[in-house]
This record gives sequence, structure tokens and C-alpha cells, in this order.
Amino acid sequence: MTIKSRAAVAFGPKQPLQIVEVDVEPPKAGEALVRIVATGVCHTDAFTLSGDDPEGIFPAILGHEGGGIVEAVGEGVTSLEVGDHVIPLYTAECRECKFCKSGKTNLCQAVRATQGKGLMPDGTTRFSYNGQPIYHYMGTSTFSEYTVVPEISLAKIPKEAPLDKVCLLGCGVTTGIGAVLNTAKVEAGATVAIFGLGGIGLAAILGAKMAKASRIIGIDLNPAKSDLARQLGATDIVNPNDHAKPIQDVIVEMTDGGVDYSFECVGNVKLMRAALECCHKGWGESTIIGVAGAGQEICTRPFQLVTGRVWRGSAFGGVRGRTELPGYVEKAQRGEIPLDVFITHHLPLEDINRAFELMHEGQSIRSVIRF
Amino acid sequence: MTIKSRAAVAFGPKQPLQIVEVDVEPPKAGEALVRIVATGVCHTDAFTLSGDDPEGIFPAILGHEGGGIVEAVGEGVTSLEVGDHVIPLYTAECRECKFCKSGKTNLCQAVRATQGKGLMPDGTTRFSYNGQPIYHYMGTSTFSEYTVVPEISLAKIPKEAPLDKVCLLGCGVTTGIGAVLNTAKVEAGATVAIFGLGGIGLAAILGAKMAKASRIIGIDLNPAKSDLARQLGATDIVNPNDHAKPIQDVIVEMTDGGVDYSFECVGNVKLMRAALECCHKGWGESTIIGVAGAGQEICTRPFQLVTGRVWRGSAFGGVRGRTELPGYVEKAQRGEIPLDVFITHHLPLEDINRAFELMHEGQSIRSVIRF
Repeated sequence: MTIKSRAAVAFGPKQPLQIVEVDVEPPKAGEALVRIVATGVCHTDAFTLSGDDPEGIFPAILGHEGGGIVEAVGEGVTSLEVGDHVIPLYTAECRECKFCKSGKTNLCQAVRATQGKGLMPDGTTRFSYNGQPIYHYMGTSTFSEYTVVPEISLAKIPKEAPLDKVCLLGCGVTTGIGAVLNTAKVEAGATVAIFGLGGIGLAAILGAKMAKASRIIGIDLNPAKSDLARQLGATDIVNPNDHAKPIQDVIVEMTDGGVDYSFECVGNVKLMRAALECCHKGWGESTIIGVAGAGQEICTRPFQLVTGRVWRGSAFGGVRGRTELPGYVEKAQRGEIPLDVFITHHLPLEDINRAFELMHEGQSIRSVIRF
Repeated sequence: MTIKSRAAVAFGPKQPLQIVEVDVEPPKAGEALVRIVATGVCHTDAFTLSGDDPEGIFPAILGHEGGGIVEAVGEGVTSLEVGDHVIPLYTAECRECKFCKSGKTNLCQAVRATQGKGLMPDGTTRFSYNGQPIYHYMGTSTFSEYTVVPEISLAKIPKEAPLDKVCLLGCGVTTGIGAVLNTAKVEAGATVAIFGLGGIGLAAILGAKMAKASRIIGIDLNPAKSDLARQLGATDIVNPNDHAKPIQDVIVEMTDGGVDYSFECVGNVKLMRAALECCHKGWGESTIIGVAGAGQEICTRPFQLVTGRVWRGSAFGGVRGRTELPGYVEKAQRGEIPLDVFITHHLPLEDINRAFELMHEGQSIRSVIRF
């Protein structure tokens, strides 16, 4: 039965979201209806809303960092039941495709094609408003109180975990920590440079601390980020505005030749180059986490790689959501991932546009929307 | 005592080498005098001779792919004695610097600064002609019958090994095999694409065969290279001239999504990009072996890395010369590395300029010069 749901709808690029009541169709085979209890607001939502995302489709219900409760399941759903607590995954885990079976990547491709088009796997949408279809977003659409998500895109988590905190594990915090632990595999004693101290960069600092890195250098133009970065484990803070020379040269000098690992958490291709070039000759590895604008390219001299540096990237921290996210939730429950530190604002759904403003003003790390 | 030595001297860029008798000073502390029995001629020698190498210094004695016999040792030399058979190393292995001790790289930096300036570690040269100093090259200068090399830049090898064959392990063959086995660590069953079928590319094919790769795709514009590539293990040969679409798209289609590993063995930055982009999403790794021209840059969209591809490079195949080269020589002795296949021409020193011509004409894989 079609139900009504409060939702923040992006009717077009560069427009504020509108809080309206949308229609949500019941889950079809292999899908679940989820009541979203809380959702974070991430830069990727803002990127799509800005109109710069070439894959952005409107009208759509954005949001991909949520926590919720299963309200109904479609035919053939076996791994979930009504009442389960879940985190929606923008990177599914079907456990059956070539990618899942490889054991080498978390980039399940099972629902990728339809997800990229704002549709469910059967090629249709479950949302509509005044009879007009509304598109899904990243397979999650957590800015709606009720959303429909494929079973393979839902990580079942312990019911004790507070959904208005662990929702952040649906994107930023897991992405940052996972890039350090899963993708780069930073080892104890290593030196680390982290470019950009937003939610993902701060989570990467936390990851480096969890990995027992000996030196954790945080780099940001905004001095307001320093305290939080230090609180999470940064040993040094560098503001490129304080230096005349290129930032990579600054880091190389500070570290007697460069860092063992670096992470780009901004999405700026010039910074991606700096992050590579501040790595130590012979073994330094740089991981790109940030998402660059459409058509932008990274460049460097090949000599940087021939002399032993490695350039890689990470999506959702290399984390297989259904398999690994419950472990992240447990870490948060034990206090190893202090989610409270990342949450600077709580807002009701009606004020969701304020969350975007706070982000653009550099005032917030994460705003959590409670329905 | 200063001795006379026949040598092919590069008096200036773009000029043929001149065979003259140079003066060679005796080895100083930590050095050895080596009688070169045979030397290969490599593209890197030609690159420097062309004048395009920004680090090229003239007049110099080129050559870096030699095999010889220790004729005298300087003060304090403990790991070598007169009569030892050796392969000179353009990548030293001091076992004491930060790089050697890291266990993560073969890029020993002990003599790098002076080597780059064409000098021995004490900042002087051992070669002169008519009283004018002649510079060393890559720390090896194997185009002289007698050369002086630091002890830490000499790999001692079994005396049974034929120097006019194993000299090729001083550069190209080891570089290609090592990039596959040491740097990329290709595993059994993997799919591999190798761009450029010169000496290094053919050696990479051999390395992929040694690693038991399931599919080995060789890519070259010159159809004359195909037979040798197949003989060494290539399962497919692709000529970009036979295809209208970009070569990376051709490889991706051939391999249902891309190869597990690729290697660029040319030094062309456009090909380096193609080599990365023909790798499989999620896990494909591309290794740059070729040396690009001064100032050239590699570019790609960061999305290529964020979706799981890895970009790395390799110098001298990641091989620690003094420690690992004896093992390569033993593999050659057992027939596992068929060096004969790489040697298309034998020439006396007097005809060394012919070796450069054969290389430029694409007629040779390796010419070996016998003194």
C-alpha cells in the first residue's frame, strides 16, 4: 500500500530543498521499506544539489548517511525482518557479482546501473509527488522519513546503537577510517598527512590514531578545524596560508623526506598532487578520498611513481557494508569511534536547508537531522 | 697506477661515440677497478646521447648494462676481491642508508648525489682523455674496457655465468622481470597487459609467464616484435594501429572489464594513462617502468583511482642488486631466464654506434658489445 512520507525534496539544482509529503510505494521483490530515524548531511549531497554533479537528476530525494528501522520487506527478502535496525548503503554488497566475489574490492556492481539513474533495480522509482515521479539518490534517499532500499544495500546493525549517531557510519566517518585502515593499511609507527579536515579528514585522523601512527599531520586552510583535529589525534596542524612554498615541500621538510601515507579528503585535484608529492620516496602511498568536479584531472611527473610512490583511491573506505559495518557500529558503541565529536548540530527535518548553510560556512562538521 | 683503456666516449650530445684510449685512475677507498667483458646497449644510453636527458653531462663514458671481472680493489673494500665476477649496478645497495634499511625499496641513496653528477662518491672522476676529465655515467660507465665502480654498486655473481649474456641482467631484463615479480607481485592466474615490446617489455612478458599469469597481452606498434613476444609467453598481441578506438578500450573489451595488472615499458605519458585505464575497476594495478622525457606529466581522472585502480612505478624492477641479482643469474643459468632470446646482435666495441642505429631502426632487442 502506498504511504505518505515527509521528505526534503530537491526539485532542481541550486534550489533549497522543499519539505513536502511524498507518496512512497511499498517495497517490491528484494527491497525493504525503511523508516529513517536520523540522517547526516554530507558534502556529496551539497555537490549534487549545486548542479555540478554530471550524474545529478532532479527532482530527487537526496541523503545517503542515514539510520533507520525496517518497516516492511518485499518478496524474497531473507536477511532482514520488520523491526531490524539498518544503515542504508550507497555501495551495495550482493556477495554474488564478480566484484564481491573477487575479495579485492567493496565496489559491488549489482545495482550500480539503475542506482546511477536514480531508480530501483527494476528500473522504476518508489517515490512520487502529486503523481509525478521523484528520483532516488545513491540508492538511499535518506532525506525522506520513509524510503525504499534494496535488501543488498542495507547493513543490519545492533538495536542498542543510537541511530541518530551511528547514521554517520553510513558515509563520512566510515569512509575516513576505512581509507586509513582498509585501503592504505597504515601500520603502527607510520607518519601520515591528511589534507582537509572536514568530516572525512577528521575521521581519517581518527583512523590514523587507531592505527597507532606516530605522527599525524592535519592540513587545512581553516584554523577553526585545528582543535577538533588535535582532539581526534593530530600531532601537527599545518595551514598552507602560513607558508610561501608549496605545501608538499613543507611536509617533506617537516618529515625528513616525506610521509609514509597521505590522504586527500577535499576533492581538489591540485591538492591530490600535493598529497602524492609529500609522500616519501621509495615507499610513500597516497590515497584519494575526495571527489573531484566533473572532467577534472590529476597530474604529476611519472618520476614520482617510478621512484617508489604509490597513488590509489578509496570509496566508502574500502568497507563492505553488510559485512563490516556492524563491526564499525560495535567500535562506536565501545567508544573507539567517538561519533559525538563529529556531530556539531542537531536539526529537525524542517531546518535541513540550514544544515547545508552551516556546511558551506565551514561552521559544522556534521549536522544530524532527526525526523 | 693510471692505466690505459679502450672506451667509447660520448664527447657531446647527438654525436656518434668515439673509440679512443682513455686514462683510468686506480680505485680509491671503497671502489673497485673492473674489466668489462661485455655490455648491452640500452635505450637509456641513447636517451642521454640524444641530449634530451636534462641530467646528461658530457664528455662521458655511457653504458650501464655490463658484466666484468674485478682487477683491483681500493682501500677498505671487503666484499670483493680480484678475480670476482661482477655486474655493475646503477642502483647501489649500501645496506646502511634509510632506504636500504627500510626494507621497502631498492632505491639506495648512498651515492645518488655524486652519481647524478657523473662523479665518484668523493666528487672526482677516474676517467680522463688528453688530460681532460671524462665523466662517469650512472655510476657504471660500461662502455670502457676498464671502469671504476663503488663497491656498493657491484653485484658479485657466480664465475660460471657467461658475462656476455648475464650482462643484460644489469638493466633491461631484470627491470622487466622484477617489475612483474617484485613491484606488482603478479599472482598465478592474473591477466596482464604489457605496453611496448622492447627489451624491458619482453622481459616483463617473461616475468608474467614466470608468475603463471593466465593471459599476457603484448601491445606494440611494430608487428616485428610479435613473434618474440609470443615465444616468451604472450598469449595475445594487439597493435593499436589495427583499432580505431583508444587502446585502453580495446583491452577492457578483450578482458571483460580490464586486466589485473598492466606495465608501461616505453616512457610515453599517453601510454602510461592508457595502461592505467585498461586496468580492471576495483583492483587493477598499473606499473610505470618507462622513463618519460623531461617535464612530461601523466594525467587521468581521479575517479580512475577512487574506483579501485592503483598507479605505481618501478626502477630496476625493485631489485636490490647485491642481494638479489645473484639469484637472477642462477635463474638464467638454469634456463628460466632465456637471455639468448634477447640478444639479437653481437658487436665489437668498434661497432658500438651500429648498436644505436639498430635500436633506433627497431631492428634489435639487445646488441651485446664484446671488448
